[in-house]
Amino acid sequence: MTSTISGADGVMGTKESARLLGEDPVAWRRELHRHPEPGFGEFRTACLIHDFLQERGFHVRIAEEAMSRSAIHYLDEARVAESAGRAVLSGVDERLVERMKAGGTAVVADIGPVSGPVVAFRFDMDGLPIEESESAEHLPFVEGFGSQYSGLMHACGHDGHVAMGLGLAAELARAKDGLNAGVRLIFQPAEEGTMGGAEAIVARGLVDDVRYMICCHLGLGLPTGAIVCRSNFLATSKYRVDFHGIEAHVTNDPQSGRSALLAAAAAALGLHGIAPHSEGWFSLNVGTLRAGEAVGITPARATAEFGFWAETSRVHDYLEGRAREVIVGSAKTWGVDVEQRLIGRAPASLQSETLAAIVAECASRTSGVTEVRESAAVKGGEDGNVFLKNVANRGGHGVYIGIGSDLKGNHHTANFDIDERSLRIGVGVLCDTCLQLQQTLGESLKQ
Amino acid sequence: MTSTISGADGVMGTKESARLLGEDPVAWRRELHRHPEPGFGEFRTACLIHDFLQERGFHVRIAEEAMSRSAIHYLDEARVAESAGRAVLSGVDERLVERMKAGGTAVVADIGPVSGPVVAFRFDMDGLPIEESESAEHLPFVEGFGSQYSGLMHACGHDGHVAMGLGLAAELARAKDGLNAGVRLIFQPAEEGTMGGAEAIVARGLVDDVRYMICCHLGLGLPTGAIVCRSNFLATSKYRVDFHGIEAHVTNDPQSGRSALLAAAAAALGLHGIAPHSEGWFSLNVGTLRAGEAVGITPARATAEFGFWAETSRVHDYLEGRAREVIVGSAKTWGVDVEQRLIGRAPASLQSETLAAIVAECASRTSGVTEVRESAAVKGGEDGNVFLKNVANRGGHGVYIGIGSDLKGNHHTANFDIDERSLRIGVGVLCDTCLQLQQTLGESLKQ
Amino acid sequence: MTSTISGADGVMGTKESARLLGEDPVAWRRELHRHPEPGFGEFRTACLIHDFLQERGFHVRIAEEAMSRSAIHYLDEARVAESAGRAVLSGVDERLVERMKAGGTAVVADIGPVSGPVVAFRFDMDGLPIEESESAEHLPFVEGFGSQYSGLMHACGHDGHVAMGLGLAAELARAKDGLNAGVRLIFQPAEEGTMGGAEAIVARGLVDDVRYMICCHLGLGLPTGAIVCRSNFLATSKYRVDFHGIEAHVTNDPQSGRSALLAAAAAALGLHGIAPHSEGWFSLNVGTLRAGEAVGITPARATAEFGFWAETSRVHDYLEGRAREVIVGSAKTWGVDVEQRLIGRAPASLQSETLAAIVAECASRTSGVTEVRESAAVKGGEDGNVFLKNVANRGGHGVYIGIGSDLKGNHHTANFDIDERSLRIGVGVLCDTCLQLQQTLGESLKQ
Amino acid sequence: MTSTISGADGVMGTKESARLLGEDPVAWRRELHRHPEPGFGEFRTACLIHDFLQERGFHVRIAEEAMSRSAIHYLDEARVAESAGRAVLSGVDERLVERMKAGGTAVVADIGPVSGPVVAFRFDMDGLPIEESESAEHLPFVEGFGSQYSGLMHACGHDGHVAMGLGLAAELARAKDGLNAGVRLIFQPAEEGTMGGAEAIVARGLVDDVRYMICCHLGLGLPTGAIVCRSNFLATSKYRVDFHGIEAHVTNDPQSGRSALLAAAAAALGLHGIAPHSEGWFSLNVGTLRAGEAVGITPARATAEFGFWAETSRVHDYLEGRAREVIVGSAKTWGVDVEQRLIGRAPASLQSETLAAIVAECASRTSGVTEVRESAAVKGGEDGNVFLKNVANRGGHGVYIGIGSDLKGNHHTANFDIDERSLRIGVGVLCDTCLQLQQTLGESLKQ
Repeated sequence: MTSTISGADGVMGTKESARLLGEDPVAWRRELHRHPEPGFGEFRTACLIHDFLQERGFHVRIAEEAMSRSAIHYLDEARVAESAGRAVLSGVDERLVERMKAGGTAVVADIGPVSGPVVAFRFDMDGLPIEESESAEHLPFVEGFGSQYSGLMHACGHDGHVAMGLGLAAELARAKDGLNAGVRLIFQPAEEGTMGGAEAIVARGLVDDVRYMICCHLGLGLPTGAIVCRSNFLATSKYRVDFHGIEAHVTNDPQSGRSALLAAAAAALGLHGIAPHSEGWFSLNVGTLRAGEAVGITPARATAEFGFWAETSRVHDYLEGRAREVIVGSAKTWGVDVEQRLIGRAPASLQSETLAAIVAECASRTSGVTEVRESAAVKGGEDGNVFLKNVANRGGHGVYIGIGSDLKGNHHTANFDIDERSLRIGVGVLCDTCLQLQQTLGESLKQ
Repeated sequence: MTSTISGADGVMGTKESARLLGEDPVAWRRELHRHPEPGFGEFRTACLIHDFLQERGFHVRIAEEAMSRSAIHYLDEARVAESAGRAVLSGVDERLVERMKAGGTAVVADIGPVSGPVVAFRFDMDGLPIEESESAEHLPFVEGFGSQYSGLMHACGHDGHVAMGLGLAAELARAKDGLNAGVRLIFQPAEEGTMGGAEAIVARGLVDDVRYMICCHLGLGLPTGAIVCRSNFLATSKYRVDFHGIEAHVTNDPQSGRSALLAAAAAALGLHGIAPHSEGWFSLNVGTLRAGEAVGITPARATAEFGFWAETSRVHDYLEGRAREVIVGSAKTWGVDVEQRLIGRAPASLQSETLAAIVAECASRTSGVTEVRESAAVKGGEDGNVFLKNVANRGGHGVYIGIGSDLKGNHHTANFDIDERSLRIGVGVLCDTCLQLQQTLGESLKQ
Repeated sequence: MTSTISGADGVMGTKESARLLGEDPVAWRRELHRHPEPGFGEFRTACLIHDFLQERGFHVRIAEEAMSRSAIHYLDEARVAESAGRAVLSGVDERLVERMKAGGTAVVADIGPVSGPVVAFRFDMDGLPIEESESAEHLPFVEGFGSQYSGLMHACGHDGHVAMGLGLAAELARAKDGLNAGVRLIFQPAEEGTMGGAEAIVARGLVDDVRYMICCHLGLGLPTGAIVCRSNFLATSKYRVDFHGIEAHVTNDPQSGRSALLAAAAAALGLHGIAPHSEGWFSLNVGTLRAGEAVGITPARATAEFGFWAETSRVHDYLEGRAREVIVGSAKTWGVDVEQRLIGRAPASLQSETLAAIVAECASRTSGVTEVRESAAVKGGEDGNVFLKNVANRGGHGVYIGIGSDLKGNHHTANFDIDERSLRIGVGVLCDTCLQLQQTLGESLKQ
Repeated sequence: MTSTISGADGVMGTKESARLLGEDPVAWRRELHRHPEPGFGEFRTACLIHDFLQERGFHVRIAEEAMSRSAIHYLDEARVAESAGRAVLSGVDERLVERMKAGGTAVVADIGPVSGPVVAFRFDMDGLPIEESESAEHLPFVEGFGSQYSGLMHACGHDGHVAMGLGLAAELARAKDGLNAGVRLIFQPAEEGTMGGAEAIVARGLVDDVRYMICCHLGLGLPTGAIVCRSNFLATSKYRVDFHGIEAHVTNDPQSGRSALLAAAAAALGLHGIAPHSEGWFSLNVGTLRAGEAVGITPARATAEFGFWAETSRVHDYLEGRAREVIVGSAKTWGVDVEQRLIGRAPASLQSETLAAIVAECASRTSGVTEVRESAAVKGGEDGNVFLKNVANRGGHGVYIGIGSDLKGNHHTANFDIDERSLRIGVGVLCDTCLQLQQTLGESLKQ
């Protein structure tokens, strides 16, 4: 059995933790699983990564060096502050936390040749606002590495992604001197909700020099041993809409009231009635609605959140245009004002068949891989697409690799759990591919 | 039993008819009941009135002399043309019909002193698009004076109003030489739907010199013998709304379609959701909706008609403002264009307590009157309010008299029928009041 | 200037407070104003009343003796518990609080002859969830008797009602030996929201023997000095509706989701679209809506609260029937389950012209009264109507008296403030009327 | 130039026409193009086919022998009667028309061995309610073979389908004596709208013995010369919904009204809001809505038509279930009754890869064919799927062949026109495939 850092929860400094855990991805995954953190609140996770990479000779950027906060779409201040407090209590370096509170929780680390184009890998770090299962069927609970934080859980496998990233880092540290091209490891905050974690790193210029970009995800419905070279996610945007009506006594002065609640209700029905698009499938959902304070008062405030996921950029943009009409029109109908604010966004997949072919070849030789598929569709949005699109737009190559893992429970549910055997397979695929790519890149640079 | 003009339907000229019918209001009412005509299509009715009044020495204006067509809100061209054809076939003077086709069907006739302010009476002439009952309980059918025109019926008593107007005219003709002030009889088209029949007469300046104005209506829930001096009708407007969307194949190209049907549906629901007003009661109704042509095509056209009726002008205006927002907002929501067009309007009642007191006094002395009420609310709109408002705004006095009549069947139903005894009572009240008013007016002019 | 209990907030026992405050209604009003309590949470208020009345020889019932908790429509457990804790901290008798936590906060006290029909007065005790103004224009703040409790305020004058009740009590205590008939003072909880405070007292049988019943309210748009003998409130009901849909991932499995949010939205629009009623005016409002938790999940839960206020019982019942159809139909439309729960209710006014005449006569002789009106309409619901209806149904007489008070700020706003001069006028009217009624009743009993 | 039957429109009997036109598919196509007939009203078309086939030795079934009227989903009685009258005036055999008026317009004709399984071909005969273009760009107008019937047009190429069917028939007549298995030509009415034309023929048992079934369509976005062996159409259903509310005067008695218009509006919005399905794309459209008669009356009747088209049967059935909930729920919401009636239906494609391979092989050898594709998706429903599904369910093989044709104007538009060169290519593919299949079938029967 793999041990986790036990005793007083994390009161040990993270440097000690890092040493204690060694380089076993399973141990790391369990340590991370115990401490899920919300999007943009990954302070403890980022500190662990920072310490691990710095110790192994990486050039590590954090906070304002690793991301540009102004590119963030949305951030829950309260949750982030709470997470920072929790991280400090858990024993991580308070100065690092202070820097990250100001500049963000991204960690971007380079190794190998310092100039010229690089090979980059993206790993996401955030957990989800889900209460983890305490069922006797749920391994993390049974084995004692369930979430220590109420209402937070690594229910999408990002703990495993970080663990694989550290596994790749350890391997690169060992191979450092023989690297022909630079390798960059990007640990991004806030993938869930696509709230701008990727955009913020891109905005700092950290993919400008990326020739090959690899994102990856565990699970996705693939069995342990299966590898998909190109996982096609949907384009997505999420919005918050605030309707501002006019409060009034509903018996003394109903005519002066303008109900934000009714405007939001009409908008919700209208958004769900947007006509289909012949180019591809989509799903739109008004997920939350909060309106009004009292039965006898015209509700003057309503807030709704909605998102949409589309097979193509054209369908995405069509939805965005129609949604705006619905929202503005519904507000007008009910005589209220409205503000619409982007809180999440990721483009459709833009991937490289060339790079996918390299991945396929590498993966087919990796130990533990039993099946390699060229591509697969995934019904969800992914912030990784932000990296892939930017790299492609500058002439680089990117793919989003799916790493099979027999799951217990679906993604984003309280019983979600990965098959830990998939972690070593993933590390293997990433290392094999990385070594191949830096070599290819190094050779091309010589010419 | 009272005879009606029999034999070949109206092939006899109207002048002969007029002579044959004498001055019995019941005979006239039955003659008119047999020939209901639609709003702005009262050709035969107007010709009968014209001939009757001209023969008795009235100064009679018709067509463009009696009304200004440009002030009309709405007119059903096809129905009017059909009615004109029917009138000509029924034997009325074709030249009169031609003039009225160009200028309108109003008849306005003066008697008495030609200068100075006048006393005016309004009578409405139009029938309704209702198929008259052929029940054994329905007197007009049993007695053979049911509607001769399929789909048209005097189902609101306007036949009786005209008959009373002619009864008043006959009396005035006899009293002509003793009149101290001018008396004007206004026979207006198209009261139903308040489509602008009154506005058109007002726009011709024909109430500019009116000091006392009296409108009247039979029935209104009052028993035979009862008189209400001020009947308070509701303010009302009616609109037609045309939504113009974009047609598209719903499987090949649904994203290009913009459904006018859905815009109209949203507007209908939105209009019915307008908040109440503390100042008074109202009712709003979307009465008709026509949209789309085929199941497989995004419906690009939709037409709806709606109206509202309100206790006060302020409530009316509030509704008008909110309705516009709903319509524009719904069109915007569904990405379609929209046109909104007024098709009917009448203001709230603006009546004179002074005049009501005079009416009360006269009516209490009139034969057959058993009860006089100062005022009563009527849940409906009335074009007569257009006259009353204009007279009041120029410092004159107006009232809307309710003349009780035990009804068989409600207003606007196939079994509607008045108690014919109420006709003579009505003529009595109008004559008594008229003689009193012209005397009062005449005296005030001398001072 | 009138003093309030100062120093440590209420740490003085309430018996001492009661003594200190004497019998000045203004002093009492200010003391109560400082300590507003929520509906069914009027622990401190009830203890003060209890002590005041007991000391003056009333037979006082509280808790389960004064009300039947099972007749309550709705109660906010958390707010009530919080209020109980606050009351204990403020120094009131803990045993009384414990009894009232179990049985309710009503106080019903009798004085005079113990058998036979009685004269009853109702006073309401609850404050509102409003943050009181700290404006320099706001007298309670300036004079230091503003609310001590954040988020709670006597913004409807119930502090003044209780103060008038104590003023009447003091007078009755003095007149005790001469009373010809029993007099009952009912201090009811939770008038606001009509959540069943009155029903609970009625259900305990405490109006079964009431011959004359008087409710009263300060303000209501009347100037200081004016008295309205019959204030006609609207019939009202309030409901909470819970929609239970089915949660689903909106990209992986949207077809399995059933959106409670959309059901609630459709219901809200539908409720606002209920057709008018010819018998009278009404207003309906969906005041709150809470639905969904995440953008990417079909929202499975939605909760809405709505209320309606109608001029007549028939209109009220029509709305109730139609509302049920709208709610059930909307749930069906969106494939979700629904529960609808009554949280507030009061009938239309049912008042006695006979009693109103007595009140008018008494009031016209009361010092400070400048104007007496027979009746007035009030656009709001009133729990007092529950008492009046029950008394009327048993052959008794009831009225709801409006006691004019020049207000600063409207009812239910942060700047609401009564004119304290109206308190003594009110006490005067109530005393004069009470003495007259017990005499009338006493005489009738002798016969 | 190809001649059409000229002179007095069709006064010549159809037998003479048939003789005059010979066997040129272009001549037939033009003759048919001039006389488009509505669904279930293909009297003239069916008579021409009947005469042509009978003359060539086919065993021809028509009317009740060819179809079972009770299996029809929907039929427009007025249009069918009008079409029958027009057909008789055009000179076709009145006795045939009478039989078809009673039994339907299907024509099913057999040739070759009379027992054992058969090879079957389906051709559809109906035109569309579209006014044909008279543009100088529109060949049928320019060349004088545009529609002779106002408001009707062959705008989907069914004229070409019938012409190809006759071309195949002529070839089969020549090859008759050498046929090893029976061949059946099915000319079906009312393909457009999938109103049950196919179901009615299936219900008569006429595909029970079909081993190979071929449907075909010109155009479908394919260029002249291209052949698609399996065209995958969408599953579809169309419904008519009648809402029955309660009529009421909207000012006198609005509370008694129940608006069918609002129920239909809510249903329309609700239907368009049905959530997506992860298994496949769909489109739903409320295409028509008619409600109400007058502005002042609660609209008691509303009729809407809607359809949906889905990629899979599961998605189709999901929509059908949800639609029913929306309709029933919306009716309940607005307090009205509702009837929902199926007016069109066709299943998803169920085709044979085996047969497609045979078609591919034959087509690749056919003169004029430049490209053969295995399969293609078509965004539309097709009544041919009814035949294919029934044949597949009995163990037979079916395909739906797409026959490329460079189109002028889209399907179902006024400028639609096929490339007539595609007719001979189509006849070639059908003949080649038919001869191959009867031989294959004949051989299999011998074993």
